[in-house]
Amino acid sequence: MTEKTAVTPATHTAPPAKFSHGVKKGNILQVAGQVGFLPAVEGQPPTPAGDTLRAQTLQTLANVKAVLEEGGATWEDVIMMRIYLTDTAHFAEFNEMYDAYFADLKSVPAARTTVYVGLPAGLLVEIDALAVLG
Amino acid sequence: MTEKTAVTPATHTAPPAKFSHGVKKGNILQVAGQVGFLPAVEGQPPTPAGDTLRAQTLQTLANVKAVLEEGGATWEDVIMMRIYLTDTAHFAEFNEMYDAYFADLKSVPAARTTVYVGLPAGLLVEIDALAVLG
Amino acid sequence: MTEKTAVTPATHTAPPAKFSHGVKKGNILQVAGQVGFLPAVEGQPPTPAGDTLRAQTLQTLANVKAVLEEGGATWEDVIMMRIYLTDTAHFAEFNEMYDAYFADLKSVPAARTTVYVGLPAGLLVEIDALAVLG
Repeated sequence: MTEKTAVTPATHTAPPAKFSHGVKKGNILQVAGQVGFLPAVEGQPPTPAGDTLRAQTLQTLANVKAVLEEGGATWEDVIMMRIYLTDTAHFAEFNEMYDAYFADLKSVPAARTTVYVGLPAGLLVEIDALAVLG
Repeated sequence: MTEKTAVTPATHTAPPAKFSHGVKKGNILQVAGQVGFLPAVEGQPPTPAGDTLRAQTLQTLANVKAVLEEGGATWEDVIMMRIYLTDTAHFAEFNEMYDAYFADLKSVPAARTTVYVGLPAGLLVEIDALAVLG
Repeated sequence: MTEKTAVTPATHTAPPAKFSHGVKKGNILQVAGQVGFLPAVEGQPPTPAGDTLRAQTLQTLANVKAVLEEGGATWEDVIMMRIYLTDTAHFAEFNEMYDAYFADLKSVPAARTTVYVGLPAGLLVEIDALAVLG
């Protein structure tokens, strides 16, 4: 019996419903959809890092990374990233940031799917990730 | 060679195309996108449980659960849920139902990503799930 | 330590950002979101197979298949397909093609989730796939 554990960085705001920011079972680590919320401050509601794609993207990647690290993984373990944007006009700018962010990646980059969806008001990007460890 | 098997609850309507409601291979069980269709009645087309978010959400969760159980899994084995809603205004009500539904969950909750997409006319919610068994 | 490798068919255009068309780690092969681009021609930008759902769907399936084969997998190993369409009116025609394409599948069909999203201008369909080998 492999244990299923929650992966919850101390920086993260409580999820808005009964789900975990990350779940690890066996060698699989699934990171829940992360958005650009700043590190949690007790007594304050979740606050986006800013209203620009840049600010939110960098914070979202930092939030995914925090879950990975809390679960004992790194970007190098990630096999799939799902990118949810709200506007096709954001694709080029998003990719520029994405490429710069992963410039020093020590493994081949993860696979990726990018689609354009609706997100809660004020949010411009959501990212989840699947890692296989070991 | 690990066998890949279809997981098909007796209650389920035939998929509208050549896909399986669930697929199991090794210790992985993938549940296909479920919507709020009532249990199949021979000779009748798939019928949503109702036109409210509540009716469809509860039926959708029941349909995911039926696939899990047919595959020898429980909600406790699920590591990821993907939630597709059609309207950001549904988020709060959906979460209330979600939290109540999983109130007695014996494991940490699954990770989750929620996005807002288009669905076929009349459908308000779709959910798929990834379980790791054993 | 299981190696994570990129799976890159020779036919494929370079990804528009730092991601891999496919990634294999252990017995898991993740195919990135594929669209209906024709085989790469050096010095030319990615070109869709046509502007019809039929042309793009068949090319997209061919592109997914190319990644599977490059990774040592076949359609029979696929447990999940994620289908992104842009118009609910495309569902019936898409399913007809899908069923015909998989008519000779030697295993049970993969699970599937289909949702309707925005895609870059001119693209009507995107598909990614998860395979478990062995």
